[in-house]
Amino acid sequence: MSESPVIFNNLVLRDGHQSLAATRMSTEQMLPACEKLDNMGFGSLETWGGATIDAGLRFLNEFPFDRLDALKKACPKTPHMMLLRGQNIVQYAHFPNDVVEAFIHTSAKHGMDIFRIFDALNDPRNMKCAIDATKAAGKQAHGVICYTTSPVHSVESFIELGAELEEMGADAIVVKDMAGLIPPMIAKAIISGLKARVKIPVWLHTHETAGLGSSTYLAAVDAGVDAIDVSITPFANGTGQPDMLRMLATLDGHPRKPEFDLDVLDELRTHFTQVYEELGDFTSHRNEIVDSDTLKYQVPGGMLSNFRNQLKEQNMEDKFEEVFSEIPVVREALGWIPLVTPTSQIVGVQAMLNVKFGRWKNFSPQAMDIALGYYGTTPAPVDPEVQKLAAKQAGKEPITCRPADLKEPMMDQLRAELREKGMPDDDEHCVIHAMFPSQLEDYFNSDRKGKNLIKKPAESKAEPLVAKGSKRELALTIDGVPHQVTVEEL
Amino acid sequence: MSESPVIFNNLVLRDGHQSLAATRMSTEQMLPACEKLDNMGFGSLETWGGATIDAGLRFLNEFPFDRLDALKKACPKTPHMMLLRGQNIVQYAHFPNDVVEAFIHTSAKHGMDIFRIFDALNDPRNMKCAIDATKAAGKQAHGVICYTTSPVHSVESFIELGAELEEMGADAIVVKDMAGLIPPMIAKAIISGLKARVKIPVWLHTHETAGLGSSTYLAAVDAGVDAIDVSITPFANGTGQPDMLRMLATLDGHPRKPEFDLDVLDELRTHFTQVYEELGDFTSHRNEIVDSDTLKYQVPGGMLSNFRNQLKEQNMEDKFEEVFSEIPVVREALGWIPLVTPTSQIVGVQAMLNVKFGRWKNFSPQAMDIALGYYGTTPAPVDPEVQKLAAKQAGKEPITCRPADLKEPMMDQLRAELREKGMPDDDEHCVIHAMFPSQLEDYFNSDRKGKNLIKKPAESKAEPLVAKGSKRELALTIDGVPHQVTVEEL
Repeated sequence: MSESPVIFNNLVLRDGHQSLAATRMSTEQMLPACEKLDNMGFGSLETWGGATIDAGLRFLNEFPFDRLDALKKACPKTPHMMLLRGQNIVQYAHFPNDVVEAFIHTSAKHGMDIFRIFDALNDPRNMKCAIDATKAAGKQAHGVICYTTSPVHSVESFIELGAELEEMGADAIVVKDMAGLIPPMIAKAIISGLKARVKIPVWLHTHETAGLGSSTYLAAVDAGVDAIDVSITPFANGTGQPDMLRMLATLDGHPRKPEFDLDVLDELRTHFTQVYEELGDFTSHRNEIVDSDTLKYQVPGGMLSNFRNQLKEQNMEDKFEEVFSEIPVVREALGWIPLVTPTSQIVGVQAMLNVKFGRWKNFSPQAMDIALGYYGTTPAPVDPEVQKLAAKQAGKEPITCRPADLKEPMMDQLRAELREKGMPDDDEHCVIHAMFPSQLEDYFNSDRKGKNLIKKPAESKAEPLVAKGSKRELALTIDGVPHQVTVEEL
Repeated sequence: MSESPVIFNNLVLRDGHQSLAATRMSTEQMLPACEKLDNMGFGSLETWGGATIDAGLRFLNEFPFDRLDALKKACPKTPHMMLLRGQNIVQYAHFPNDVVEAFIHTSAKHGMDIFRIFDALNDPRNMKCAIDATKAAGKQAHGVICYTTSPVHSVESFIELGAELEEMGADAIVVKDMAGLIPPMIAKAIISGLKARVKIPVWLHTHETAGLGSSTYLAAVDAGVDAIDVSITPFANGTGQPDMLRMLATLDGHPRKPEFDLDVLDELRTHFTQVYEELGDFTSHRNEIVDSDTLKYQVPGGMLSNFRNQLKEQNMEDKFEEVFSEIPVVREALGWIPLVTPTSQIVGVQAMLNVKFGRWKNFSPQAMDIALGYYGTTPAPVDPEVQKLAAKQAGKEPITCRPADLKEPMMDQLRAELREKGMPDDDEHCVIHAMFPSQLEDYFNSDRKGKNLIKKPAESKAEPLVAKGSKRELALTIDGVPHQVTVEEL
């Protein structure tokens, strides 16, 4: 077993604020921390990908490659890492190979070093093009195993998938526990099994949502994991990654504990505390505490809160338990797919439709596509009856090929479309246009390009709530929790 | 190593609300949960002791033995446990043996089964009388090791203390990690060391304050710990004990995982969520999340917040770091005492006085007493220069005997005082009168006896903040965290 210090990857610039502040941290808010982050000695900095590309363009008026350029310049020493949804790139649907290749080639050119590539169904065919393109660009391709529980998933099945990804050329295997539900003993079994089976490094990614994260990391470190993902408070713990100071304390006395400069870490914590306060409109108390409902229902934390909101919109709040117990029914019928973007949303909506209209009376278009193979091969076969119903409703036949094989190359058309709109037609604009056409156009036509929208203070026209110079004591209930609050006009 | 399921003690009725809701849970709020708690299969229920006796009398108008009677009647099957501060009983100063004996004898008569006995200095002489009295009453005496870090504390020194407590007749050894600062590896070393050394059971108590609790429990379970302390959300995690649902998930796949009825646990969670909302005036967001400052400063979470408040009252907020770095200086001079009630408060105040007036220019009376041996033997010798200064200021000489040996028996006098005041003079009233004379008198003379004070809604004379029927959206910063809040008059 490895006795070398475990590597820490730092995710504060991507997953940290995606999990805890609705992906709203701007490049401007990141830059003051960059030199310190770059000098700390992290294995990598996750700086891009996931929801940051969409959110940056949509809410912060940032062109995605500008952020990457700025962060690469500010953190030149540490490898940069991004999360990529395989053939979905950073969207929810499949793209043809030429767009995937152009995206990866362009990102590599702008400085991306490590592409962490996953598929929501764990179908390696959906990861292959991205892995190949990454290697062709001379960068590191990490193959991801999405952890889930079901009758067809087992420690052995995850190890098999790891071996398959290694054979496909992955430079490392990452076990991705997006829901934070791997118990320590299972993590130990998976990590030691992978370490015995593959020659490439094995990394573990988890979240503290259910309160298992740090003990699971400790078990993984015992089992020889090469690297783990941490963040920095307050963009850590809860629905985010375990905080690195806490993780260092957890490893106290452990032969694999790494060394970090705690004074610099303290400065970083002060900076990110300030940023967290600036992003107060997008943070939530519920995300900061251990969510026991996640443990009860065994689904990702984000899925639960979406679910509650959707049921509310549908006036179906009283059906929560009923809809909830429909989830395993839907998962089983759809071949026990993992619950991760975008499948968590798809399964949740379908469970709701089944309860509202009767089981399989009404398919969402996405659930139909999963049932018919348009997302890839499901972990177990789709229920043949459900597939038949889906085919009838969809008016199309099931497929067994790799879904993107049905997609025609798009790059030429994308370029033509951009030219027609009078926009730059370079690869950077083409790949963003492919995924986020209206957001890119809005951004391009906006006079606020590069200006951070959320930092503009709104002009308040309201009457003062409390007379200037006096205070008011109130009992307020926030997120269901009563608080004693003092209000004063500033 | 033991392969039998690890025992769970449940602390929701004592430490759970002491840590997370200022000890304000009333007997009335506990009773609906009792039958379920009693049937779950816990090793014990902590129902009494610590701050609950003081707080119940002071804030809830409950006579302490009435609560014990009610809870014992409602939970007849599971052993009841209480936390006892050795010769301090549940107060902050030493009492003569006859009061300690009467308290334990009376509590045993009212149904207390397990007395968990600690001393803030880890001086076994301060625990001996309580251990002997417990055994004489035919009940279980658990000897406590207060965990702390210092140059004179080591895994070996804790194991030595455990052996000494066993020799004194303790029925079990409890490692008490009041600050939640034992890292898993150290817990493993202490627990396995104790298991190898003593024949009696070894229990572990910790808090989730610093985010180490559940991984430390897991390591202790691996090392053969016999029982661990858990609670139930929302009176769990944060400054409280790890939540039991979370702890069960952490033990998934572990050969020592115990079995519990999760449906009943869910009902209990629903009940305590309701109680937590009722106690909203006494809960705090800060207590619910992992406190990284605890990790930075390595002191109990409660000490940090007291500290901040005291510095504020003294207009010394800008001196936080300076006062803080004085703490190890004070601890070293006072023989490296652990930081736990009451020593955490005493050390904090003395550090503040040292910064304000110059080092050792001004002793608090309690710090003087520690320096002169009036709290017992300190882990290391007190600095002779500091002791000399303390003796001069106090006008009294250092002692080396057990402090309570200097105390005259008090029970006859207490009884006479009660008779004089026209109050009942039974042992129950005597021991409470010994510790909380004015609170007992207030309670006795109040017409609100047995009525829960905090549940009385205060009459509001204020103008409406928002016009009846309308709502107001506000951004409020609470405990430094910005929130979006909707206010409406109800």
